[in-house]
Amino acid sequence: MDLKKIISAVDHTLLTQGATWEEIQKICQEAQTYATASICIPPSFVKQAADYLQGEIPVCTVIGFPNGYQTTETKVFEAEDAIENGASEIDMVINIGWVKERKYDQVENEIRTIKTVCGDFILKVIVETCLLTEEEKIEMCKVVTRAGADYIKTSTGFSTQGATFDDVSLFAAHVGENVKIKAAGGIGSLEDAWRFLSLGASRLGTSRIVKLIEEQGK
Amino acid sequence: MDLKKIISAVDHTLLTQGATWEEIQKICQEAQTYATASICIPPSFVKQAADYLQGEIPVCTVIGFPNGYQTTETKVFEAEDAIENGASEIDMVINIGWVKERKYDQVENEIRTIKTVCGDFILKVIVETCLLTEEEKIEMCKVVTRAGADYIKTSTGFSTQGATFDDVSLFAAHVGENVKIKAAGGIGSLEDAWRFLSLGASRLGTSRIVKLIEEQGK
Repeated sequence: MDLKKIISAVDHTLLTQGATWEEIQKICQEAQTYATASICIPPSFVKQAADYLQGEIPVCTVIGFPNGYQTTETKVFEAEDAIENGASEIDMVINIGWVKERKYDQVENEIRTIKTVCGDFILKVIVETCLLTEEEKIEMCKVVTRAGADYIKTSTGFSTQGATFDDVSLFAAHVGENVKIKAAGGIGSLEDAWRFLSLGASRLGTSRIVKLIEEQGK
Repeated sequence: MDLKKIISAVDHTLLTQGATWEEIQKICQEAQTYATASICIPPSFVKQAADYLQGEIPVCTVIGFPNGYQTTETKVFEAEDAIENGASEIDMVINIGWVKERKYDQVENEIRTIKTVCGDFILKVIVETCLLTEEEKIEMCKVVTRAGADYIKTSTGFSTQGATFDDVSLFAAHVGENVKIKAAGGIGSLEDAWRFLSLGASRLGTSRIVKLIEEQGK
């Protein structure tokens, strides 16, 4: 197990509903101390965090989060607004109702439109695996690949289940070579974090890994 | 217990993450059959539902939902977009982090800005009571009143608890006379619905009351 490799894959995350700037600031400081891949925080804190971090750590935020059923127009505006405020990574949630209606083209177009807004910035697409059938998960691998997003991401952490090893393996088998994988939601131990990476994930969305590494260092 | 009074206060609600148009259409039809106050549905279904209902039942949607931590700019855009698509009632979530930081003015300004967008349309302000202290709840009654919103609403239904009788009573004691009360989240029986109305609620956000009344009629 390579702790440095784990920590460098972590999007250090705080998306709790009542999060305060004091708590977000702590996330920023921890991300600086441990050199995480990014911090992942609510849109309303992006500007403050970007000003605070001064480019040292990328700021990631969430769009259409966590339910994904905003209009495309709103998601596009929200992504533009986040980038203007200093975000350089965008984690968007797909419209799951559209997946259930088999409107895969509509899901793909929405992702493509938001990728256009992101330009060279990173776009991760949360498909909320716990609500999808295996067939739908495989379809989403294809959709995310065709739409040109940078990552497929398992979960919001706000639905019925987080990332599973099976889902990350399934993604690894079905995404195109330009699409990376982010496992998120419920990652509770360094062993699990390592296993997600071994199965093909390049990023880990978690609030707990930094604390676990902190404890190891003590 | 006056069933007609109960049903006429119901915002017939479907905000499940994976809701499909087929399910939303059923909500529309039930709302027409029972003459509910409105339907409350995700933003991405507002246009379809408004076209379907042709003004017979008001379409209500949710803004900054359910976590409330989008930027004000995004919430404003989302409200404009919803109204353009045919919504005539807007249920927005406040930024709970700002409440925790005691930035009451910022919360008030955000509500006032969105009320300006709504004009004569109804604005309901979800304060997510389960995350607030009693002092914060009372402060939010004052803030919502000063900001000129039409309703204060207890809960999103996505946090740790829904409406309680105590919270509705507290709201009734502290909001200004122009502010009505919506109880939402977890309303599970006609007796509870009636009690919420008796304590001062004018609207009930619920998916279950229509089914319960349907069963009574059989």
